[in-house]
Amino acid sequence: MINKKEDTINRKNFTINKLTSLGERIIEDVSHENVPKIKVPSRGTSNIVYDEDKRYYVLGDRYGQRSLGNVKQIQKIGQMVYMANFCKDLVQRGKTATLREMYYVSEGWDIEFGNQDESNIIVEDMEVTLGTSRDDLGLMPEEDGASVYGDITVKDDDVEINAMKMGKSGYTISPTINDVELLDHNVERVIAVETMGMFHRMVQENAHKKFNTLIVGLKGQAARATRRFLNRVNEELELPVYICNDGDPWGFHIAMVIISGSAKLAHVNHELATPNAKFLGVTASDIVNYDLPTDPLKDIDVLRLKELYKDPRYRDDFWKVEIKKMLKIGKKAEQQSFSKYGLEYVVETYFPEKLDSM
Amino acid sequence: MINKKEDTINRKNFTINKLTSLGERIIEDVSHENVPKIKVPSRGTSNIVYDEDKRYYVLGDRYGQRSLGNVKQIQKIGQMVYMANFCKDLVQRGKTATLREMYYVSEGWDIEFGNQDESNIIVEDMEVTLGTSRDDLGLMPEEDGASVYGDITVKDDDVEINAMKMGKSGYTISPTINDVELLDHNVERVIAVETMGMFHRMVQENAHKKFNTLIVGLKGQAARATRRFLNRVNEELELPVYICNDGDPWGFHIAMVIISGSAKLAHVNHELATPNAKFLGVTASDIVNYDLPTDPLKDIDVLRLKELYKDPRYRDDFWKVEIKKMLKIGKKAEQQSFSKYGLEYVVETYFPEKLDSM
Repeated sequence: MINKKEDTINRKNFTINKLTSLGERIIEDVSHENVPKIKVPSRGTSNIVYDEDKRYYVLGDRYGQRSLGNVKQIQKIGQMVYMANFCKDLVQRGKTATLREMYYVSEGWDIEFGNQDESNIIVEDMEVTLGTSRDDLGLMPEEDGASVYGDITVKDDDVEINAMKMGKSGYTISPTINDVELLDHNVERVIAVETMGMFHRMVQENAHKKFNTLIVGLKGQAARATRRFLNRVNEELELPVYICNDGDPWGFHIAMVIISGSAKLAHVNHELATPNAKFLGVTASDIVNYDLPTDPLKDIDVLRLKELYKDPRYRDDFWKVEIKKMLKIGKKAEQQSFSKYGLEYVVETYFPEKLDSM
Repeated sequence: MINKKEDTINRKNFTINKLTSLGERIIEDVSHENVPKIKVPSRGTSNIVYDEDKRYYVLGDRYGQRSLGNVKQIQKIGQMVYMANFCKDLVQRGKTATLREMYYVSEGWDIEFGNQDESNIIVEDMEVTLGTSRDDLGLMPEEDGASVYGDITVKDDDVEINAMKMGKSGYTISPTINDVELLDHNVERVIAVETMGMFHRMVQENAHKKFNTLIVGLKGQAARATRRFLNRVNEELELPVYICNDGDPWGFHIAMVIISGSAKLAHVNHELATPNAKFLGVTASDIVNYDLPTDPLKDIDVLRLKELYKDPRYRDDFWKVEIKKMLKIGKKAEQQSFSKYGLEYVVETYFPEKLDSM
């Protein structure tokens, strides 16, 4: 196993070097009386490619050039340089700031952002330009990651934590998950569920013991830190990851973004995607086979399902069949709808049957 | 200190007795050939009273009568009886269900709910009728409560947990907070903040040590479990509670619901409200005094501020002055806007100045 402490220090030095060389290149250009330029890899749709081998989206090799010789680009370069300086300071001091704080900090600078969307875009520019991730730059989102319950021991903030000894709601994945060391575990798999309602059901029905599993409560669309955690338990600990979400296009896609990454984050998918993760349900077939309580598909659901059908990430037969079937029956169902057969049914009957079939 | 284990068992028996006697009264009516009736305290606006002594909303003594002799009321009584039976089973088995699960469980009953709103209303009917709370009936919301960081030790799920040894995101208040024992602490106060961004800032700047405080990350509108936790640390542990939210009508009201409870939950405010909690900011005066980055008030903000001005919970001079001032300057500001002066400013300068002034 990698020595995490060393790994963290290496990542830190690596990031500082990248930030420093960004500035040095500009100084060098100036001292040689060249117009300073920065190469920024393109994040346009035409440069986002689904990589069949890697099974997630990656960035192509097209890039744009920002030049201080172009009046329109001066502000963007200025913003990036100020931000890089701020991030270097953060990383050196071992601190982090939220994206929102970063935006407010910029109010004290000589260069402005119109709003936070604008500063967020420059953050992504920095990520692709330096080939690093937001977290490594010390920048975090507002929200925390998922909840984890089960027999895994991690080292977060120099404290050893066992995710089965933290109360009913388990361990909360902190936004700085890259600094967390995965010390030890005694499980065979990871089952992630969309809602905290289902999370608590599984904890209460002892699903962690029954399936010798970690239970992860995604809280809807998985935060970057959650995706990184799932990627790490899959790659570092070699645990299979299963995802059980609501049986609707939104549940499908929450799972798919964990599996194959998002197009928007093509530049960091190599650390976030878990292509080996498997979708455990709820499928259109489950809706039929288990005669689940349903809601009719809304127009927006139908539209979204048709989009997913064309999406390269859904090209497996499994998805083609399930999406078509859902469109045909015109119904969707939530995870918690298994409660129709009693609270225990989902853990005692549904999960064992699904895991067996895989 | 109360023996929590005994207290929990007492609460449990108390609830089971109440549920049982609801059924027994109906059986008695039937066996005496009377038409079964249930008295349900009214939750209409005219029966919700702001209690000046208690400093929160309470229910008045008006009630409605539901009778099996009234065709329109048969379904509602049937729903309540089925639900009471389900809850009795939950409490006896020491289990809980989410409100969503309860709704789906009802799909297996002979009596229907049109949708979850309808079943949620019957849950509230049960709470007022029995004089108990949803949690005691084993029913939980979907979402977890706030995050807590700092030197407090609780016993949750038979595990002792110190909220300073759980990683950067601290201890997550579980929905079943009534079962949690507050074992020990070494703090002088509690500071609750609206966002997890500010929570992480405070943890990072060692606010817990600097102010000898617990740090609570509310995650927006405080869940019932969070309010119950704040109520308990204030009453059981006699810790002063301070709330620092965004400087806008929504931030004000998140604080006020913690302080004086909501009108909608008048029947449980005695366990949820913390009338001694103090609002620590951000105020309109702070916006002016600290020259904070602001956004202009939107129409909806103005409307909401005017509503708050008339609300009895905001009758103190402090609120009258601050609401008027915010309307006058026409601006609002977020907690994180202090970052204009550097990330540390809020903990090193703002909080000490505000705490001093109280």
